[in-house]
Amino acid sequence: MASIQFDRIALIGIGLIGSSIARDVRALGLAREIVVSTRSVDTLRRAEELQLGDRYTTSAAEAVAGADLVIVSVPVGASEAVAIQIASHLAPGAIVTDVGSTKASVIAQMAPHMPDHVHFIPGHPLAGTEKSGPDAGFVGLFNGRWCIFTPLENTDQQAIDRLKRFWEALGSRVDEMDPLHHDKVLAIVSHLPHIIAYNIVGTADDLEAVTESEVIKYSASGFRDFTRLAASDPTMWRDVCLHNKDAILEMLARFSEDLAYLQRAIRWGEGDKLFELFTRTRTIRRSIIDAGQDVDVPDFGRHGLDGKTNG
Amino acid sequence: MASIQFDRIALIGIGLIGSSIARDVRALGLAREIVVSTRSVDTLRRAEELQLGDRYTTSAAEAVAGADLVIVSVPVGASEAVAIQIASHLAPGAIVTDVGSTKASVIAQMAPHMPDHVHFIPGHPLAGTEKSGPDAGFVGLFNGRWCIFTPLENTDQQAIDRLKRFWEALGSRVDEMDPLHHDKVLAIVSHLPHIIAYNIVGTADDLEAVTESEVIKYSASGFRDFTRLAASDPTMWRDVCLHNKDAILEMLARFSEDLAYLQRAIRWGEGDKLFELFTRTRTIRRSIIDAGQDVDVPDFGRHGLDGKTNG
Repeated sequence: MASIQFDRIALIGIGLIGSSIARDVRALGLAREIVVSTRSVDTLRRAEELQLGDRYTTSAAEAVAGADLVIVSVPVGASEAVAIQIASHLAPGAIVTDVGSTKASVIAQMAPHMPDHVHFIPGHPLAGTEKSGPDAGFVGLFNGRWCIFTPLENTDQQAIDRLKRFWEALGSRVDEMDPLHHDKVLAIVSHLPHIIAYNIVGTADDLEAVTESEVIKYSASGFRDFTRLAASDPTMWRDVCLHNKDAILEMLARFSEDLAYLQRAIRWGEGDKLFELFTRTRTIRRSIIDAGQDVDVPDFGRHGLDGKTNG
Repeated sequence: MASIQFDRIALIGIGLIGSSIARDVRALGLAREIVVSTRSVDTLRRAEELQLGDRYTTSAAEAVAGADLVIVSVPVGASEAVAIQIASHLAPGAIVTDVGSTKASVIAQMAPHMPDHVHFIPGHPLAGTEKSGPDAGFVGLFNGRWCIFTPLENTDQQAIDRLKRFWEALGSRVDEMDPLHHDKVLAIVSHLPHIIAYNIVGTADDLEAVTESEVIKYSASGFRDFTRLAASDPTMWRDVCLHNKDAILEMLARFSEDLAYLQRAIRWGEGDKLFELFTRTRTIRRSIIDAGQDVDVPDFGRHGLDGKTNG
């Protein structure tokens, strides 16, 4: 068990990420007290049933009072509203961080409201599943995963190091990055994949010649892989799209350009172009497996998980 | 153990699918003799090392002589060449089937060469993984999966029933479909997903602002899900693209149209349109899980598979 790192941690938002942090902090004994806050009375009640914290409140302002670590885990579009609510209640010396998937926008929303006497360190743990809500969290979600900080200039190095030790205690490795670069990297490794997945599932849903029951019945031949990402939290992903617009539009333009090239190769029967691309992409999967970022078992190992869904 | 169904099964092609059939037939004792044939001397030697058959030959003609079941498991572009090679050597009453992912093209390539005294029944087991070659096969690949027949008119019903019992012995459920409808269904549930996956992985590989090592390092945030399909056999998928051109181009056009709509919503900040789509797609994943076509564990259950790749 790690030792106590913070006296009081305030969690603003208690969905998949917030509740996983709560569970880890509790399991590792990283804080003397956990205060849980969320706007929704129902979600707060559920968090209490799950015993995720020591105190519960619908008021973010109340939650942050006296906290030496504040973690904002809300859809990125709600960042400014939270910043305004908590600003005047933050304790001197407190570290304020977030877990948002876009960083330039979160900084623009929150930084102007942060008082000088706190350390605002924007962060993004690259962890999650397609599930959402306080019940979806679990101990170990961040274990072995990256957490990216995008600190502002002149941030106190000791505060950064302290927050780094916190994420490391949760099993994460911490990287630092410029916010705009973060937003470009995430646009390709996360935002575009989700948007494409949502889009293809939508396209399939709209067909007239192929019924929805056929799509479902035969989905194991490829389609089902996309449905996982397309089952992610709609509010979170709406906000990501709206708050990382420029980087996403750039990646979408590139993707569409490449797809037009591929489409043309199919139309004109240019097998060599298809073969070249289909060979090149194999190498990348190999590298991902070698880097320990995916499992080296066929079909994501689903064969072993359920007798009915092998293949 | 099931009883013997065929005297001699000839397997033309011994990759992931052919070798999985060989293993199942052996394990279940469905044939008195298995003859394995493939053009490549190296692959044939490997099949022999793996003891996949009773006899081995690089000659498809030799392999089919005296066989009462012939299963062609080659990239769909090689179907006509195989049909020409085997046509005059097929035994009277033999069932000839295939496993190709496109059906109208395979029928056009093979049917004209088939002698009247055999039963040609085009088939497509919807099973596979991203791995390829004789080593990739395994017992149980077809268990719980669909196999679609697209029989020609006037095909002997007893022969269809006999082939159906064969796939059922391997654990599959058999559906019948018109070949053109099959090609449309597969274009959306399998071909489009693979093409999109290949494309996005290619797009990521071509970026200047984001390095390949960043793409790999942070791939668990969505991207890695696509790399599995994009690691599939390049020859097989080149052939699928070339031999189901019309249906694929139609699905690509619809996909691109939908993506343009989504892109426009992002550009103009139309959060309600995004939210509507992102909510609708969740339902489809639910249906797929309810239909037993995917596992109901977050992140395809990868958390439990490897401590280093959770999330």
